[in-house]
Amino acid sequence: MKNYTKFEKTKGGRVELHEKLGLTGSEISINALPAGANIPFVHAHKENEEVYYILDGDGKFVIDGEEVALKAGNVVKVAPAGKRQIFAGDKGISYICIQTKAGSLGEYTAADAIIG
Amino acid sequence: MKNYTKFEKTKGGRVELHEKLGLTGSEISINALPAGANIPFVHAHKENEEVYYILDGDGKFVIDGEEVALKAGNVVKVAPAGKRQIFAGDKGISYICIQTKAGSLGEYTAADAIIG
Repeated sequence: MKNYTKFEKTKGGRVELHEKLGLTGSEISINALPAGANIPFVHAHKENEEVYYILDGDGKFVIDGEEVALKAGNVVKVAPAGKRQIFAGDKGISYICIQTKAGSLGEYTAADAIIG
Repeated sequence: MKNYTKFEKTKGGRVELHEKLGLTGSEISINALPAGANIPFVHAHKENEEVYYILDGDGKFVIDGEEVALKAGNVVKVAPAGKRQIFAGDKGISYICIQTKAGSLGEYTAADAIIG
C-alpha cells in the first residue's frame, strides 16, 4: 500500500477529507459560504480543537459571544469548549477547518522527523 | 482565558503556528518555496502523519521515489513512513502542512459536537 493519498478539489461546496484521504489524526474540511450566509447553529466540541484557515473572502466568528473578524490569511484556533458560529461577509468566505483531538500531539517537526 | 487564539499571516516565508496559537492536537505551518526551489532533504516521521494543502502555484512531491504532481487545491496525506521531498515548479508553490499524531483522532464532526 502506498504511503500517500491525494485529493483534488474542484469547484463547489463543502468537502470532508477524513474518508477520502484515510486521515487518522484529523478531520479536515474545505468549506465555502456565499455572501451573507452563515452556519445556522452555534456549536462546541467534546474532545476536539479546531483550527480555521481563511482561504478567501471575509466574515466573522462569534466565539462565546465575542465577534472575531476574519479575512484571507487569518488562522483561528478554537478550544473544544468555545461556542462558535461563523458568518460570511459581503465577499463570502472560504476556509479550511482542521479538527484534531485536543492534547493528542506528542513530538513534532524536527523531534519527530527521520532525515534521509 | 479565552477559548480562541488568532494569527494573522502577512507576506513572507515559513510560519510555524504551534506555539503562536497554542495548538495541542497539531502543528501547522504555512510555507512558500520560490520557483525551482525545494526542501533540500528527504524526510519521514516517527509518529506523525502530514497533510499538505496546496494554496497556490505548482510543483511536485517525490514520495518513496514516486513523483506526485501538485497544484493549487490539491491535498496530499503522507503516512509517517513515507519518504517525502517537495519541489516548487515554475510558479513557486505555497502550502499549508498539518502534522498530527497518526491514529490520534477519536470521534469527529457530528459525533464530537455539542450543539447550542
